[in-house]
Amino acid sequence: MYTPPLQDQKFIIEYLLGIDAINALQNTDNIDKELIWSILEEAGKFASSVLAPLNHSADKQSSSISKDGLVTTPDGFKEAYKAMCDSGWTTLDAKTKWGGQQMPMSISAAVSEMWHSANMSFALCHLLSQGQIYALEKSASEEQKRKYLPNLVSGKWTGTMNLTEPHAGTDLSKIRTKAVPDGDIYRISGQKIYITYGEHDMAENIIHLVLARTPDAPEGIKGISLFIVPKILINADGGLEKQNDVRCISLEKKLGIKGSPTAVLQYGDNAGAIGYLVGEENKGIEIMFGMMNHARFSVGLQGLSIAERAYQQAVNYSQTRVQGTPLACENGATINHHPDVLRLLSVMRAEIDAMRALIFIGGDAMDRAENAPSEKANYNQNRASLLIPIIKGWITELSVAHCSDGVQIHGGMGFIEETGAAQYFRDSRILPIYEGTTAIQANDLMFRKTIRDEGSGIGALLDEIESEISQVADSHRTAMLQAASDVRLTLERLLSRANEPRFLASNAVSWLMQLGYLCGGWMAVKSADKATLNSATLAQDFVKTKQICADIYLQHSLPQVAAYAAIINNEENAILNMDVSWLNRQTA
Amino acid sequence: MYTPPLQDQKFIIEYLLGIDAINALQNTDNIDKELIWSILEEAGKFASSVLAPLNHSADKQSSSISKDGLVTTPDGFKEAYKAMCDSGWTTLDAKTKWGGQQMPMSISAAVSEMWHSANMSFALCHLLSQGQIYALEKSASEEQKRKYLPNLVSGKWTGTMNLTEPHAGTDLSKIRTKAVPDGDIYRISGQKIYITYGEHDMAENIIHLVLARTPDAPEGIKGISLFIVPKILINADGGLEKQNDVRCISLEKKLGIKGSPTAVLQYGDNAGAIGYLVGEENKGIEIMFGMMNHARFSVGLQGLSIAERAYQQAVNYSQTRVQGTPLACENGATINHHPDVLRLLSVMRAEIDAMRALIFIGGDAMDRAENAPSEKANYNQNRASLLIPIIKGWITELSVAHCSDGVQIHGGMGFIEETGAAQYFRDSRILPIYEGTTAIQANDLMFRKTIRDEGSGIGALLDEIESEISQVADSHRTAMLQAASDVRLTLERLLSRANEPRFLASNAVSWLMQLGYLCGGWMAVKSADKATLNSATLAQDFVKTKQICADIYLQHSLPQVAAYAAIINNEENAILNMDVSWLNRQTA
Repeated sequence: MYTPPLQDQKFIIEYLLGIDAINALQNTDNIDKELIWSILEEAGKFASSVLAPLNHSADKQSSSISKDGLVTTPDGFKEAYKAMCDSGWTTLDAKTKWGGQQMPMSISAAVSEMWHSANMSFALCHLLSQGQIYALEKSASEEQKRKYLPNLVSGKWTGTMNLTEPHAGTDLSKIRTKAVPDGDIYRISGQKIYITYGEHDMAENIIHLVLARTPDAPEGIKGISLFIVPKILINADGGLEKQNDVRCISLEKKLGIKGSPTAVLQYGDNAGAIGYLVGEENKGIEIMFGMMNHARFSVGLQGLSIAERAYQQAVNYSQTRVQGTPLACENGATINHHPDVLRLLSVMRAEIDAMRALIFIGGDAMDRAENAPSEKANYNQNRASLLIPIIKGWITELSVAHCSDGVQIHGGMGFIEETGAAQYFRDSRILPIYEGTTAIQANDLMFRKTIRDEGSGIGALLDEIESEISQVADSHRTAMLQAASDVRLTLERLLSRANEPRFLASNAVSWLMQLGYLCGGWMAVKSADKATLNSATLAQDFVKTKQICADIYLQHSLPQVAAYAAIINNEENAILNMDVSWLNRQTA
Repeated sequence: MYTPPLQDQKFIIEYLLGIDAINALQNTDNIDKELIWSILEEAGKFASSVLAPLNHSADKQSSSISKDGLVTTPDGFKEAYKAMCDSGWTTLDAKTKWGGQQMPMSISAAVSEMWHSANMSFALCHLLSQGQIYALEKSASEEQKRKYLPNLVSGKWTGTMNLTEPHAGTDLSKIRTKAVPDGDIYRISGQKIYITYGEHDMAENIIHLVLARTPDAPEGIKGISLFIVPKILINADGGLEKQNDVRCISLEKKLGIKGSPTAVLQYGDNAGAIGYLVGEENKGIEIMFGMMNHARFSVGLQGLSIAERAYQQAVNYSQTRVQGTPLACENGATINHHPDVLRLLSVMRAEIDAMRALIFIGGDAMDRAENAPSEKANYNQNRASLLIPIIKGWITELSVAHCSDGVQIHGGMGFIEETGAAQYFRDSRILPIYEGTTAIQANDLMFRKTIRDEGSGIGALLDEIESEISQVADSHRTAMLQAASDVRLTLERLLSRANEPRFLASNAVSWLMQLGYLCGGWMAVKSADKATLNSATLAQDFVKTKQICADIYLQHSLPQVAAYAAIINNEENAILNMDVSWLNRQTA
């Protein structure tokens, strides 16, 4: 069972972002509240009635591969994908020019949240297509756009990203896949791994975007080019021609997201797969980096989604399970009345609500960066690029902890796969890893977004937080001002060590987490404040919940800001004194 | 690959516990260092060469059940179990009277740590037998002891604990399994779930200990009796007779520990299973509670074991994987040189070493409680009973986090089951649940061991910690004294709210975690201190590692003491203002 969190989503859109403000950013038709609400409501119905019921069975069944490399997705996926396309859901955020509805990120994020909560394995397919659409819109030739975008937007074809090779994961400079020029085209050969939906049965064609190296390319990251490699070649009329020289040689057996096929793709076993260069040679990494913000934002969003689903599962279970008589309750009261179950659920709720607000604020910042008047574009671009590693890193780390708490609330039943809680725990574990591990996000935040501009971006964020929280209820203001001040002190310390990169790198994840907890507090008290200000038009229980969630966040989550300050604000980081050889155990 | 951590184990036994002190507690033959070391070394060999190689394949294969209820354990388990019995490992901690070697807990814990690190699913079988042996030694009649103990101690038969029913997990008062007197015996009928090794093919007989209710028993917890129910009945000569009326009707499909069969057992479908009362009627829960300390200690120990194995796996992987050039390193340096990988590994190491010391200290306290001169027995009993919920709760919570970090260090490879890191993540998740969830441990600690004696037991522990840390290096003393003082303040606050049970229960897990982090710091600085004092006889790298592990623990882990103080030391716990109905999401 999945309940679309529409009340919370609408609240953020209406009172934290503002419909007028969203509209002011639009470069297309006016979108009014009625339209937005109806999109969210319809998406909620599709998520809860079509996608959610397939989630657990897909996990049990997994995607599978036949001897001849054909991949079968779990029962129901094919039909659900067709229904998704027929309803136009794949077109939501694409440009109207290519058949899209050009909705702002803040709206499409709300819809995507529901897809991933309902069925993360399923929703991954379109997530990859979205990334490819974004990359092609920015970097492909007009001819390429006309050839691929309409069918990618409609969902008739799906897209993949082919970056990783066995020896080249985080470090793409080690890519060895070859691209040899052959007239207008290139012949691609090599092996790519971890290709999500690299092969499947839900669409008539799959368009691979492949990073590869031309024969005379410079070594390293500056010698990598990007190619379009369709699974089935396309003729001049746009029709499907013949199979390209690419095949799926195996699927990974994974800890989670088992419904989604994760393929090993072999290119060029025969004449070489036909590939078409995107942009210029040796600019592949730049193009990939250009879409990275969107991809990382999407994974942070998945963190919110899986935590929300685990939360709902735990709430539902706690409302029906009777075990022991909770303090001050009648015999037969359900376990949600046990103080510690209530603690686990309430802290999850407070953190998830803060995560959601931060995601929507982040999506809005990305919208503004692209569409705001030029004098503010730079400011908004900086803000978006600052929030993205926090959204990706902090939210996905929390999501794993939440899914773990979701299991805990179920007691012994949580460890039995049939219950479903264990699946979220398994599914969530990929999120702090793919699209750049938490450490990669943290290094980005530390070096590119804290040290490089000498703290001015972070300083501006802190100014804004402090200015906003000066308005909120006394009980919330004091703790938040203290936390913001702790972060300022940490920032100063880090800036004073700007020429000690190992010290900075050793504290990078702590810095990311500290900022994440601060931003979460900002969102929690801002939400409580806006709910209070608009209590005349909001449900009273909802207003109280937002106020109490802020109380809970400040008491249970915000203390981590000071804990991370205690870790970072030292002359040295003790871990740097650990010799790697000492980590080995000795038998004598 | 598994490396027995003998250097660390021997250090704790020799310098934190002391061989002479262990000997002074013994009520049997003298055990000298040479004997202890040879036991640990042989156990290490058996764990690494026989048990560890079966761990991953057993997870893949799982235990399985046939249509007629026969359970097959994974390939190699049967032979490994026979080898374990043949080498006498099952007899280590049992009384000599029944064929045991009567080793103290502090030594048998070191051995058990290696079994569970090597193969937790396998080692669970004997863990259950140990619990049963302990219960029968304490509570069975002499005749019952003679009939069952020798074969349980030799491992010829194995033992199980039958507590849980579908509606009765944490709350055993709801047990419905019936026991109807029939002459000298009882006829047992009902269903028991979550029975670890409830059916298997490794031993010729299985002795079930079953909680059930006699016809006129009082309601609730005081109407439950304990019965011995052999799978195969035993004749007067001790030979096997015929199958009892109990059968395994299914195995659970679990998140982890898949090598171990978790059975649903059906009793009494025909004439009723023949059961023999242990102790008196209606005293079943008391007998179970009498063995609870040992069982909870053993699960805390499993937490140490699985964290250690995940740590070793991550260390090994980090020493061979090349990905990106770490700061200040040559191209081709392995990922353990990346500051954040080093951080994850070093913090794991520091915490695991603290966990191990706390486990061994806890085992020693249990030894002292049973064997020390009577004037100190009470003190030692209190100390052991105080440490056990901390060992069970804090260590198992940390073990899940460590296994998660173990996956993270592997990057994308961590999410692929073949690598093995994911298995530890899955296996670990049961530990904060079975033998009483973390909340159950925390309530025990809060109400029975903090409030009931008005803080005197905790106060004595804090006195001892403060006295010991007054001797350690300056750099360690200051932080630890501050943390101990934070805990004292929290203790005062809690005692001042002694008549507000919901407030106390809502803070119970935070209190357990706060004490856990303090005890970990105590162990870390004590270990560093003892290593420094004995640096003339210890390897220099080992001494440095212990010193640096203490630095790391104080910097990275100890700040949680203050964070939990910030949570608890408030007028109210905000979670108690959350109405359970507000936890539901609303679609409008």
